[in-house]
Amino acid sequence: MSLLEKTAKRITGLDETAAEAARARQDQLAKPGGALGVLEEISIKVAGITGQPIPQPGRKVVIVMAADHGVASAGVSAYPPEVTPQMVANFLHGGAAINVLARHSGAEVRVVDMGVASETQHTNLISHRIRPGTANMAEGPAMSREEAVAAVEAGIEEGLKEIAAGAEFLATGDMGIGNTTAASAITACFTGLDPAELTGRGTGLDDAGLKRKVCIIRQALALNRPDPSDALDVLAKVGGLEIAGIAGVILAAAAERRPVIIDGFISAAGALIAAGLCHLSVDFMLASHLSVEKGHRAALNRLGLRPVIDADMRLGEGTGAALALGIVDASLKILAEMATFAEAGVSGPEEAEAEVKQV
Amino acid sequence: MSLLEKTAKRITGLDETAAEAARARQDQLAKPGGALGVLEEISIKVAGITGQPIPQPGRKVVIVMAADHGVASAGVSAYPPEVTPQMVANFLHGGAAINVLARHSGAEVRVVDMGVASETQHTNLISHRIRPGTANMAEGPAMSREEAVAAVEAGIEEGLKEIAAGAEFLATGDMGIGNTTAASAITACFTGLDPAELTGRGTGLDDAGLKRKVCIIRQALALNRPDPSDALDVLAKVGGLEIAGIAGVILAAAAERRPVIIDGFISAAGALIAAGLCHLSVDFMLASHLSVEKGHRAALNRLGLRPVIDADMRLGEGTGAALALGIVDASLKILAEMATFAEAGVSGPEEAEAEVKQV
Repeated sequence: MSLLEKTAKRITGLDETAAEAARARQDQLAKPGGALGVLEEISIKVAGITGQPIPQPGRKVVIVMAADHGVASAGVSAYPPEVTPQMVANFLHGGAAINVLARHSGAEVRVVDMGVASETQHTNLISHRIRPGTANMAEGPAMSREEAVAAVEAGIEEGLKEIAAGAEFLATGDMGIGNTTAASAITACFTGLDPAELTGRGTGLDDAGLKRKVCIIRQALALNRPDPSDALDVLAKVGGLEIAGIAGVILAAAAERRPVIIDGFISAAGALIAAGLCHLSVDFMLASHLSVEKGHRAALNRLGLRPVIDADMRLGEGTGAALALGIVDASLKILAEMATFAEAGVSGPEEAEAEVKQV
Repeated sequence: MSLLEKTAKRITGLDETAAEAARARQDQLAKPGGALGVLEEISIKVAGITGQPIPQPGRKVVIVMAADHGVASAGVSAYPPEVTPQMVANFLHGGAAINVLARHSGAEVRVVDMGVASETQHTNLISHRIRPGTANMAEGPAMSREEAVAAVEAGIEEGLKEIAAGAEFLATGDMGIGNTTAASAITACFTGLDPAELTGRGTGLDDAGLKRKVCIIRQALALNRPDPSDALDVLAKVGGLEIAGIAGVILAAAAERRPVIIDGFISAAGALIAAGLCHLSVDFMLASHLSVEKGHRAALNRLGLRPVIDADMRLGEGTGAALALGIVDASLKILAEMATFAEAGVSGPEEAEAEVKQV
């Protein structure tokens, strides 16, 4: 049995007992029921994921998957493909947005070369260079099915490695010029929506560029005919190597019962692939922010995930997930540290009717 | 000249030079222009507020204003008025949600009794008990104009005191059973919208309770006829003592050129009063989250403020503002710590046209 099959088999549902205990405690805390909204839901989900009724904040790792996209040669990005290795170097030197935001949230950053076109050397760069970038999906499949499996398994390996080394919360991130094109194509496959409804400006396309990008996505889908009931087929034909790696990280987190925070649109595309490979993996995902990229909302809706940050971000790298890690910590502290109605000596809700006076 | 008049006179606009320097730096940081969305805008606004082109995170204080509302006797809340002093005690003992979230964001909490009906004694409780709760606005004005001025000035005093003691970021919070009724009435005055569009379930009213609440707000507005061009008139007739205190804190922050983070619906009502007293104070406000209370969006739209957290919260106390303080810090770290394109050796955007190939 392959690593992918073995990992998917290990994924089972949430621990409902722990989740119910967390929900019961949330209802006893001195606040109106549900008044902390998604903050309450996050803590309950993390309880169900980890099996701990009062889960604690813990070690956090953001895994940034980088790769190039053959389709970038078709003019679907405002930036040239050289930017992928340049930004990888920036991540490794600690100067990128993801470094700043991960430090802010107390998270470590790992950078994985899943298939950057030009080879990059750095002590801290983890290499799983499946191939030097995908092929142009507008002219044929982005990669072979075997390459897709290898890329997902590389992601699984990295996820398992971090968890074995003590990571209790994983977060996903991406770098790859051209990758919103792949994310839009994947989202179109799984939602059945038209690419025009799912395609944004990425790093900053103008109107003509956006139109071209939609055309190219339509062409890639028409030519490759990816089968939405077969996530590996979708991934191989219109996906990306970093998206595969993200899917792998998610599956590893789900198998090891660790929460995994999904960044923006590219990570959501990876999450759609992970969900296609093993639907139960969705139970282990937490959404972070809602991107400007309009396909992101459709992808999150498909996954049934609710983001907590809405700040017009569209950078990727894991920046939204890193920011959300702080909010996940806050939600766990609420569950663990707040006084109950009884402890605080606060009266509960009353029958409003009893209070009515004629005005 | 009164403290209120003196304070309003000291409020001048943003430092455009510092804001422009911050914007120019954001555009040089190694990311597509605007890709961090509201995170970029926050840092630019804080630069304009403080006059520092690269403002740093600093000492943070959440000021929680507590008071009772006469209108609570009309059955507009799912909780009884005794909860106001009970929650004040909970804040002072450190067991409330605001304590947990303020600790999480590295902020201190101050609790001010602006007019809780029953007197509470505690070493750390700051007392500005203008009166033991407002009168029932459905039967007449909530307070006199003189009381409204005194309450705003108490808020100004507290804000100035915290800033003199070293606070660099203020955040507002509230406690007061019945205060969403006052916030809806205030928002209706300033937006001209119908109370039904601005009134929510507060701590958890049922359908009948919600209907009653809307009726009572309509009655209070019809009876008192507050003048939206006179913020003190609105505040006195349909406001609250804690809302007045919040308005005062905001004016103090604006006068001292400190950012003030506005919590949810009650704080936004205080912000509407502050804006009515001195329109330039809006330049010093940062929104935090978008509440479930439907009047909140209308109030923020009126103020032109954009929240960053969207998590179905509706607790008040300053919880959304405390959570947002972490995001404000993150935005300042982005501006201060990220590498520029030049420093990182990353190529800038290219003319997309140059990259187009016929596909």
